[in-house]
Amino acid sequence: MVVSYDLDKIAKKLNLDIKDISRAFKKRIIREYEYKDTKILLFKKEFKHLEKGTVIFLNDNLDVVRGYPKTYRALVLYPTLKKHFLDKIVVEEKLNGYNIRVVYINNDFYALTRGGYICPFTTKKVKKYLDLSILEDNPNYMLCGEMIGLNNPYTPKYYEEAQKEDENLGFYIFDIRERETNKSLPVFERLKLCENYRLPHVKPLAIVDKEEAHIKVREIIKELDKKKREGVVLKDPNMDVVPLKYTTHYTQYDDLREGFKFFFDMGLDFLFSRVVREGFMSYEFKESLEERKERAKDIGEAIILPMVETIERVANGERVTEDIELIFDSEEDFYEYLEFLRKVKILIKIKKIERVKNKLKVLIGKVYNRTNDKVLAYLNGTLWGE
Amino acid sequence: MVVSYDLDKIAKKLNLDIKDISRAFKKRIIREYEYKDTKILLFKKEFKHLEKGTVIFLNDNLDVVRGYPKTYRALVLYPTLKKHFLDKIVVEEKLNGYNIRVVYINNDFYALTRGGYICPFTTKKVKKYLDLSILEDNPNYMLCGEMIGLNNPYTPKYYEEAQKEDENLGFYIFDIRERETNKSLPVFERLKLCENYRLPHVKPLAIVDKEEAHIKVREIIKELDKKKREGVVLKDPNMDVVPLKYTTHYTQYDDLREGFKFFFDMGLDFLFSRVVREGFMSYEFKESLEERKERAKDIGEAIILPMVETIERVANGERVTEDIELIFDSEEDFYEYLEFLRKVKILIKIKKIERVKNKLKVLIGKVYNRTNDKVLAYLNGTLWGE
Repeated sequence: MVVSYDLDKIAKKLNLDIKDISRAFKKRIIREYEYKDTKILLFKKEFKHLEKGTVIFLNDNLDVVRGYPKTYRALVLYPTLKKHFLDKIVVEEKLNGYNIRVVYINNDFYALTRGGYICPFTTKKVKKYLDLSILEDNPNYMLCGEMIGLNNPYTPKYYEEAQKEDENLGFYIFDIRERETNKSLPVFERLKLCENYRLPHVKPLAIVDKEEAHIKVREIIKELDKKKREGVVLKDPNMDVVPLKYTTHYTQYDDLREGFKFFFDMGLDFLFSRVVREGFMSYEFKESLEERKERAKDIGEAIILPMVETIERVANGERVTEDIELIFDSEEDFYEYLEFLRKVKILIKIKKIERVKNKLKVLIGKVYNRTNDKVLAYLNGTLWGE
Repeated sequence: MVVSYDLDKIAKKLNLDIKDISRAFKKRIIREYEYKDTKILLFKKEFKHLEKGTVIFLNDNLDVVRGYPKTYRALVLYPTLKKHFLDKIVVEEKLNGYNIRVVYINNDFYALTRGGYICPFTTKKVKKYLDLSILEDNPNYMLCGEMIGLNNPYTPKYYEEAQKEDENLGFYIFDIRERETNKSLPVFERLKLCENYRLPHVKPLAIVDKEEAHIKVREIIKELDKKKREGVVLKDPNMDVVPLKYTTHYTQYDDLREGFKFFFDMGLDFLFSRVVREGFMSYEFKESLEERKERAKDIGEAIILPMVETIERVANGERVTEDIELIFDSEEDFYEYLEFLRKVKILIKIKKIERVKNKLKVLIGKVYNRTNDKVLAYLNGTLWGE
């Protein structure tokens, strides 16, 4: 299979030695994926200088779309921001959805997930809601943004600003990059372009001096926390150093609450990283014992309450699922998306299908077999070895 | 090195093929250890039918001491107890200390830790406080018990009943086994022997029918929880099926509180297993939302408060340690124990030495470098990748 590609050309295009790319194939770091007639290779893991989620289109050009880099986190704002940044810091809101890169290749638009898959659902939604002529004018760009809203299949959270006629869904650009080099446009260039092309985008909340950033960001975070928003991404105006993220107490709480609904499917790192963030935040915010206990109560409840609810539901004979409502413009779109979920091995149950004004409103239930099976087994007397 | 042993004889004694034992050596499952002039081999992991912590003394007899088996846990009392047990269940209190096997080999007594090391501290304490003539009469036995009290080096927790003249320390036998076959004496035979030899031992809290055990054990657990005790071990009177354990909310709370003092050294499984136990307990005890929130508050505080305290202390320039006070009868005993800690790679700092009535009172601080180093790094602006 591997030999059927022109490995030499692919290696050259990716700046890899032929030996390295062969090894990446052998170790299953590179996978094949097909969407309609479009064939791509994608990197399942970081490899050499290439980010996880990097994609190469198997067309004549061998178009490359680099993966979106991991964003590191400040556990404490001070001195992390002061040390990391150069001078000014642009504070942008971090939206809680899923990361998407939109590209224009072979006269067509594609929306790639963080992992590098072409998502049919997202591809159709961005084509529907966005004027993407910016990419026709600049096919070397990728639009990097967050798909948010209650009616998305991966991170369903309601956002007031994402309300459309039929669904709660919106795409907000937070970065424009050259897709082959992964070089970001400076923040203000990106903002100007988004305005010129009337593209929805994340707007700066503030521009602050790095010396006092920790004070300003803390104030912003406290405001965002009250509004139950996720947090901030902090950027150098010229993108000369990588962005950093910092999230609200609400996000840590909400992540745990969601994670513990399916606690045997949750990664242990997921749990640990949320509580550690809370520890450093409580310390840095110089909380009183009373405030600290209030935080602890939230974290405790985010862990215990959804877990017990799941146990109760399984004990009552239910198989618990994460239920998400999605809107499709046609049956064909729906079936295409189901086919996609099958390919990327996301297990779902279809719980309800309604036809609403020529559209399909579908309730899908994500299946978490591990949690269901384990809870049932322990409730039936299986011994626990930990 | 391996060839210097009579591998044939050792293999035969352990009921292993020569091929298997060679593999165990190669994979470093078997380690050598020496205490004074006593040489032993010990199993660092479970291997074939041999428990982790199994030891073979390299004397003429090649005396074997089998490892203490893992005790499984009921996550819910019903139907687990009913399914697991045969008829009657002996409910014993589970003490929170460290597991020790005391043996008599080559005219000497040895106290082995769970991992199979001969612990000089424990060996001396059991010889001091216990009349071990039972082992002289029955050298094929091992006395399995819990060493508890505030002044023990591994699990320092105060126990009223363990108070001695100079220290809070006591050894309580909960099992007597044939050390080479790992066969337990029936519960009542063990109790009678302990009484006849006036050996301190764990006494049954109740003997219950398996059909109603879940009700009785729940009542007992609620009482033990109020008294801040660890929990219960449930046993078949004839030891025909393996014992099960079940712990109090207080223990889950206390474990988390201790673990989070050194949160970057804590295993993630440790954290997860405690909260999962709480979930199943809250479900099974049919708690009201109010009771459940009270439980959640405890768990949240057990996680957040010690973590923030550690961060604060490190921020204030301290290197945090777990401080334990130990009493030694002589300087020689103290040095011997230090040498042991070095061998088993437990890092400590000596914080204080006092001479009290011919004894040495030593405050040792267990060093948790990972927590100290990581907290300091993040406080200094190191980025967090999770």
